Amino acid sequence: MNASAPDSNAARPLIGISMGDPLGLGPEVVVKALASPELRGRARFIIFGLEELLEVAADQAEINPFWWREPYDQGVRVGSGVLVADFDELQPVRTNGGRGPDAPAGHAAFRFVEEGARHLREGNIDALVTAPICKESWHLAGHKFRGHTDFLARRFDARRVNMLFVAGRLRVALASDHVPLFELRNRFTIGLVHQPIDLLDQALREWFGIDRAQIGVLGLNPHAGENGLLGDEEQRIIEPALTAARNAGIQVSGPLPPDTAFVPEVAQKYDGLVAMYHDQGLIPIKMQAFHAAAQMTLGIEGIRTSPVHGTAFDIAGKNRGHPGSMRAAVELAIELATQRQRRLAGPLVAP
Amino acid sequence: MNASAPDSNAARPLIGISMGDPLGLGPEVVVKALASPELRGRARFIIFGLEELLEVAADQAEINPFWWREPYDQGVRVGSGVLVADFDELQPVRTNGGRGPDAPAGHAAFRFVEEGARHLREGNIDALVTAPICKESWHLAGHKFRGHTDFLARRFDARRVNMLFVAGRLRVALASDHVPLFELRNRFTIGLVHQPIDLLDQALREWFGIDRAQIGVLGLNPHAGENGLLGDEEQRIIEPALTAARNAGIQVSGPLPPDTAFVPEVAQKYDGLVAMYHDQGLIPIKMQAFHAAAQMTLGIEGIRTSPVHGTAFDIAGKNRGHPGSMRAAVELAIELATQRQRRLAGPLVAP
Repeated sequence: MNASAPDSNAARPLIGISMGDPLGLGPEVVVKALASPELRGRARFIIFGLEELLEVAADQAEINPFWWREPYDQGVRVGSGVLVADFDELQPVRTNGGRGPDAPAGHAAFRFVEEGARHLREGNIDALVTAPICKESWHLAGHKFRGHTDFLARRFDARRVNMLFVAGRLRVALASDHVPLFELRNRFTIGLVHQPIDLLDQALREWFGIDRAQIGVLGLNPHAGENGLLGDEEQRIIEPALTAARNAGIQVSGPLPPDTAFVPEVAQKYDGLVAMYHDQGLIPIKMQAFHAAAQMTLGIEGIRTSPVHGTAFDIAGKNRGHPGSMRAAVELAIELATQRQRRLAGPLVAP
Repeated sequence: MNASAPDSNAARPLIGISMGDPLGLGPEVVVKALASPELRGRARFIIFGLEELLEVAADQAEINPFWWREPYDQGVRVGSGVLVADFDELQPVRTNGGRGPDAPAGHAAFRFVEEGARHLREGNIDALVTAPICKESWHLAGHKFRGHTDFLARRFDARRVNMLFVAGRLRVALASDHVPLFELRNRFTIGLVHQPIDLLDQALREWFGIDRAQIGVLGLNPHAGENGLLGDEEQRIIEPALTAARNAGIQVSGPLPPDTAFVPEVAQKYDGLVAMYHDQGLIPIKMQAFHAAAQMTLGIEGIRTSPVHGTAFDIAGKNRGHPGSMRAAVELAIELATQRQRRLAGPLVAP
């Protein structure tokens, strides 16, 4: 690696993008996000998808196509701009009419992610950005995963994964995600709380380049249980998880009263926060920056980011999608990939 | 009432303020908030408290005293500015040294609220603003209430009360508040969800002057349960509560996915939102405007507001308190009292 030529192709990370569900918002937000020449100048891209749909989206948004196309053949070309790896194998996929769960669309969306994940695992791309898929469509097509994170965990043989959300300086990892709120009671263990602390600490060091990261862990109950008056999970479960983390050398504070943890003057004390359940973390992330927030996966040996919205079938295909979150996901992927390149290159050594 | 003289004493509402715990942040934020001549010009005030502590706070903050003092004698004088009704009966209360739960301080804080509530009930004041108390101090002093709301509910013989939080245009009522999160499972009923919808609708009409208010009701589970995949409380409990509200003529939507309900472009569709539990409502309120949010009580026949912070013993007495939330509570009290005066005066009738 030649650090003196930062604008050479070799120094610009290669970002893979899976186009997402053909009937969802994916094609549109991918095209709109990459329409920025400034963004395209910061990395090289390969889109796993269907060029026809990208063309339709570009046409609707009055964007001139900025990519070149090659049929996807299991390999990854290295160019200097945006390559669309076109999945001829999937043609035709229903591209207009109904928007909603659909087996062929689900299979296509799955194939894009499957190939993207393969190249990520093999190190052919530096990061993978996944546009939204529809879980029900995956299921209709026979792909029985609960979603991207579940699929990636299996492909990367990761026993432990957590979701991390990033909106500017606000980084929030979830101890639990798609669990009915009251059912969480039966799964709320020391390990459940400890794992995201551990994975977040590792990610902040290795991917975000933050040494001695400060992590804040939220309580579960109102006022973080108020010394047991409003629930004992803080004392029984969260405190022991914090102790284990401290014993491993992690800088961690908590349990923080959840309702003030996201007040800016509190949140800014921490490099990352750990929320106990889905909405405790997602309400503040989406409120702060719905169109500038991105999601990523902790626990796999590869950088995977995505926007925080779904397929949005209700507005898909109407040129009404906002590309902000997709852009944030791409920017995060570039930032992390660049940071990792630096880390792998090692510290500068005086001659 | 003389509507042609809006700046007369009679047209300016009389706002009662209970000073809160003598050892807490109350005296300081009351003095700092009312230090604004502009705010004082919009209402008349009576502070139920201890003048000595207000003087100490004013001295520390380099604010010239702007009040006159009278010993409290169960009555309410009507003046044009700020009257401190001084509770000589309570002297001396420990005013420096330790900060924390304390029986004499708890009794003093209780007496201020008790008298404030009495005058509110009797119609001698137009609204009551309560500075923070310490529940443990109340208990040490033998006053066995869970807090302001509990006490006011009993004094006003209100069978149904809920907390409402207001930060600018964002108004959030809580279906439940100081309940351990997982214990809520045993209390989560149709009535629990319906009550705040009903009380909020009434408050929006009668106190905020909003006809045909639009109310949004949040789900309990991630993605509002995703049609039962992530929990069935939306279908079993929240939907029936919404149906009951609609049958009573209330304009209500939901259950809304909690994580996007507070995204500005969603929240602004509603005049008020109903959150299912403490942190679901308080995280966004405090994140949006910690120093400009106020709380009020739904369900009692009187206007009572308060700041959203507590006694903050850790910073009390050090001139480090921010008066923003207390100011917001005073402003809200003035707004609601004025609105109610207008409503009671009735619509203008052509001669």
